[in-house]
Formats: sequence, C-alpha cells, structure tokens
Amino acid sequence: MTSPESAETPSVPRQGRTATLAEIARAAGVSAPTVSKVLNGRADVAPATRSRVERLLRSHGYRRRRADASRSPLIELVFHELESAWAMEVIRGVERAARRAGLSVVLSESAGRHTPGGSWADQVAARRPHGVILVLSGLDEGQRTLLTSRSIPFVVMDPAGDPGAEVPSVGATNWQGGLSATRHLVELGHTRIGAISGPTRMMCARARVDGYRAALETAGLAVDPGLILDGDFHHEAGYRLGLDLLRRDNRPTAVFAGNDLQALGLYEAARELGLRIPDDLSVVGFDDLPVARWVGPPLTTVRQPLTEMAEAATRMVLELGREEKPTAGARMELATSLVVRSSTAPPAA
Amino acid sequence: MTSPESAETPSVPRQGRTATLAEIARAAGVSAPTVSKVLNGRADVAPATRSRVERLLRSHGYRRRRADASRSPLIELVFHELESAWAMEVIRGVERAARRAGLSVVLSESAGRHTPGGSWADQVAARRPHGVILVLSGLDEGQRTLLTSRSIPFVVMDPAGDPGAEVPSVGATNWQGGLSATRHLVELGHTRIGAISGPTRMMCARARVDGYRAALETAGLAVDPGLILDGDFHHEAGYRLGLDLLRRDNRPTAVFAGNDLQALGLYEAARELGLRIPDDLSVVGFDDLPVARWVGPPLTTVRQPLTEMAEAATRMVLELGREEKPTAGARMELATSLVVRSSTAPPAA
Repeated sequence: MTSPESAETPSVPRQGRTATLAEIARAAGVSAPTVSKVLNGRADVAPATRSRVERLLRSHGYRRRRADASRSPLIELVFHELESAWAMEVIRGVERAARRAGLSVVLSESAGRHTPGGSWADQVAARRPHGVILVLSGLDEGQRTLLTSRSIPFVVMDPAGDPGAEVPSVGATNWQGGLSATRHLVELGHTRIGAISGPTRMMCARARVDGYRAALETAGLAVDPGLILDGDFHHEAGYRLGLDLLRRDNRPTAVFAGNDLQALGLYEAARELGLRIPDDLSVVGFDDLPVARWVGPPLTTVRQPLTEMAEAATRMVLELGREEKPTAGARMELATSLVVRSSTAPPAA
Repeated sequence: MTSPESAETPSVPRQGRTATLAEIARAAGVSAPTVSKVLNGRADVAPATRSRVERLLRSHGYRRRRADASRSPLIELVFHELESAWAMEVIRGVERAARRAGLSVVLSESAGRHTPGGSWADQVAARRPHGVILVLSGLDEGQRTLLTSRSIPFVVMDPAGDPGAEVPSVGATNWQGGLSATRHLVELGHTRIGAISGPTRMMCARARVDGYRAALETAGLAVDPGLILDGDFHHEAGYRLGLDLLRRDNRPTAVFAGNDLQALGLYEAARELGLRIPDDLSVVGFDDLPVARWVGPPLTTVRQPLTEMAEAATRMVLELGREEKPTAGARMELATSLVVRSSTAPPAA
C-alpha cells in the first residue's frame, strides 16, 4: 500500500534518509542546477517548473545540507506589523544578540507584503540568512517548507496564537503575570476587580486573564464575568471599556488592564469621570513599556522582559542553525515580574 | 609644481576624469582583481595591501561605476544608538519606502560597533546595498571614502550636529517649531515663559531655542537667560530642570520643554510640587510621539513628521543612487506643525 505522495514520486526514498538534490531533480524531470536555482530563489526558472520542484521539496521533506560559508551574515526579524508599541524593545534585543554573533539584522513587515520580487519567503530564502525570528506572526505551510528545505531555522517570538507544538518559540509567563497582578490587588484589599483583556485570539491575552481568574478563585473571591471585557491591546480600547466599567453604579475599585496601553486608556477614562488614581481606582498594566514610568501616576505593571526575550530568540535560532537537526518544539518562557509604582493602593474605606 | 598626493602617484590622472580600477591597481602595484576584492570587502587581501589600495582609492576620488544588477536589494538604516524614543517612527518610514522600492532594510547601531568581521563600514560595503541612511550619526572621513568609492549613496537624517554642506540630509523645521510653540504660549497671555533645551551640541536643539527667543523678541517680551536651561532630551532632565524652574519664587507660568520626553519629566516635577497642568503651568513639547496623546493631560506639542522624514530620506538615497553623480549638499527640511491639546491654557489671573 502506498500513500498518494509516494505513488506520485516512486523514485525518491521517503524513509530513513532525506532525498538528495539529484533525486529531487530526477523526480521533477529537471537538472540538479535547476533545483539549486529554485532553492536559491533565483528568478530564471519557469513558474510551472518552480512550483513542481517546490512541491517535491515539500512532499519529500528535503532539507539542504548546511554550509555556513554560503550563508549571509544576516538574521531576519519579521514583524506582522511594525505598529506594536513594544517593537522597539524587541528590535534592540535582536540587534544586540546578532551583533555579538557578528551578524546584521534585516527588518521586515509581513502584513500585506506583496513585492514584485516574489513572496516575502522567497526573498528571505534568496538572502540565505542564518535564521528568521518572527514576531507575533506565524508561517503558513508553504513558507515553512520554503525555509525548512533551505535549512533556514526560525523561531516565533511571543506568539499571538498557538504556534503549534513543533514550532520553536519564546514567550513570557503570561499566566503567572496575570496571577501576580491580580494577587497584588487582592492583597491591597480589593474585592471588586475588573479586567480588560487583549483579543481572545491571542493566547497571551487568554493566559493573562486566566491568571487573573486563578488569583480571585484562590483568594476565595467570586469571578464576575461581567467585569471581564475583551479589548484589543490598544489605548482606545482601554479608554472605551474603561468608561464602560467606571460608569457602572457598582464600579470596580481596581482594574487589571491587560497591557500598558490599555492601562493608559483607562487613565484617560478615569480622568474624564473625575476619578483619581490610585485613590478612587487602582490600575495594573502589563509589559512595562518605558512610558509606564513616565505617566502620572507612574504605573504599577507586570514587566515582560521583551529585550531579553528577543535576545533569547536570537540565540535559539542560531543554536538551531548549528545543530544537524533543529530541536523540534523548543519553547522557552521568560519570567514576568510585578513592578509596583503609584497606581495601586488600598480601596477607599 | 605638484601636490604631495600627485607626487606620490604620478601615473594616475587627478583632474577631468576619475581614475579607473586598472589605474588604481597599477599605482598600488597589485592586480585589478585585488582592487576589486578590496572594493567588495573580501577578507582574502593582506591588511597592508588593503590599506594601500584604500589610500589610493581615497586620494584619487575613485568612484565605482554603478551596476544596479550587482547591488543587493537592501537599504541600510544606521542608528547611532537604538535608545531613541522616536526610532520606531523612523524605522516605520524607511521600511515603508524601501518596501515600495522592493528593498529590505538592514538595521544596525553604529555606537561601539567593533565586530570580528571588520569595521561597520566594511560590512556595509560588502553587502552592496542601494544606499545608507544614517540617523543622528555622521560618517568619519574613512567611512565616507569607503562608501563613496563603492558608489553607495548615503543620506543623514535629522543631524545632531552640522552634517557639513556636502552631505545630503533630511531634517525638520526646528526653528519654526520653536517659534510656533512659543508664539502659542505668548498668544495665551503668558509673559514669563521658560525653556528646557536639548544638548547644545545638537543643531536641532539650538534651532528650537532660537525659535523660542525669536517668538519672545518679536512679541516685545524680554528674553531672560536664567529661564533657559540646557537638558539632554531625556525624561530625567525634564524632571530635574523642571523642579529647578518651578521651585523659584518667581516661577514661569509656561515652559517650552524642548521635546516630549522632557515635557513628561516636567509633568512629573509639577505633580510632585502640587502644580496642576494647565491651570498652574502650561507645557509644550516637541516631536509628537504617540505617548503625547496618552498622557494626562494630553500634551500640546510640535509635530515633527518623523515617518515622512524617514520616507523622504529613503527616496532621496535611492534618487542619489540612480544619478551618475550624487547631488552634493542636498538638504531637505520638512515642516513641523503645532498640535494643540490640553496642556496649555491662559495663565491663572
């Protein structure tokens, strides 16, 4: 009994060892240099040939043997969008770790990227970097194959969703962070604590709110689903949902804001309603962006070590590149820590 | 009569046309491929040979003929340090313009850069980018020669000091910005207006304070040198110098803070002294970072179009690359504009 794939290409071995370039060429009915051209992202290959070769590379799990000398001294850093307020912290960490390894950083944005020179992944493959770091951005099946067949390792940083067990990734202890933020409020004496979450499609947002729930439950406090609102991690959501929470008759005396930007939106809502922080309302953020220290009052928040996470992701991708086989499923989580400033206090008597 | 340089290398023409690669090779006593290797940043050239060739390239103003095909689809973006609060705005603009041109962005930091692979400029030369954008960072003579001899154009963005008349650069109308910030305060009725400047070695800081002075003088108000303090564009300076200004018996009723970060430091100083903004103190910033909208009260500031400036610098460097001879001394200044929010009001009666 044969699987559809092996029936399609009987001349290429499927098990035990990976196919050679010559075998892929024979199966595709092209010369070995043509397969090479496809691997190197060269433009002078007919589209039909190219996609036939790509299909075979994928179905046979072809993996180019590494030759460090042929790699460019580059690391690719890819953001879904460069709008993120904490992109700078990440860039700094990757640049620092790359520099230590003698590499330069190519920065790009994957959102809406359709350039004349082919897809984003084609361009990356043609540059032959030492590795790729993806921030809040996954890879589709085709992109993954493209990188894997060129033996270009990749690591996902702070995945928005579930990166899949086999994808190496670096994150922070989001659940633990939500837990300690909320415990801090409980210990100050708050019993009516609201939460503004990030988008529910982001695992990190879910983990933070789950930590919030766990803190309430372990303290013997009821979790009121009406006090948990879904935001999107932007300032505007903190403002809008903050107004919603704070205008209620039985308003919360404290809010875990999900991230720092939402906390700042919540500050604005409180100002507009004439509520003083922390006297009338305690606020805890998440991230510890530089701005958290600068707002009035300085924000109590959960520090996410973004620069260190980015450095760790860079080291991880370089380690993957040095090994014969990448460690599948490597997942690293760096610890978060509560930074107590002036936006939290016991509830008014 | 001959100059020392031409006496040193009599076989190479100095005037009328630039030296050819073969002529440089003959003068250096090496083969043309060796000169080529030096130009391409290859490691397999003896250091003594390399520096002899570099010296000749410099003294004869050698300029490689452009061959677009041999260039990598890259733009280099170089920060002196990645610490700048507005680096993200610049990165976004360069990325946007580069993407439109089908190019990717290599990001690096020039401060303290000593990598095993040679100097920063050597690495840039070896990558053969379409151009280099330097942010708050100049080039020394050797780096400039290295780029010029490879026909790699460069543009300086928002120069901290005087970039020199022959260096293409993009900035903002800093003087005009300082003028309109201060005029706004004068029009509100303030007569005792302080200023916290950036570092005096930065031309942009000087220009802003000169605009402040011009606004006072044209309004018939005396300029009190004791009300102008030199900061460094960081939050801490705004706080420290803010305390200095606000603790005086005859304290100013308004302050032009030089940039947004110093304005936020000034906010903190005012909070600490129990002064309300804008009731007791009006504050104007400069830059219009995203945070200016989020602080309490939202900050009146001078918008510097950083993303547009970065896009303009990218377009300029690509234009320079397309011309046979770069336009020496191109300098572009984009307009600043006053954004009035809630941190300014008439002085208390």
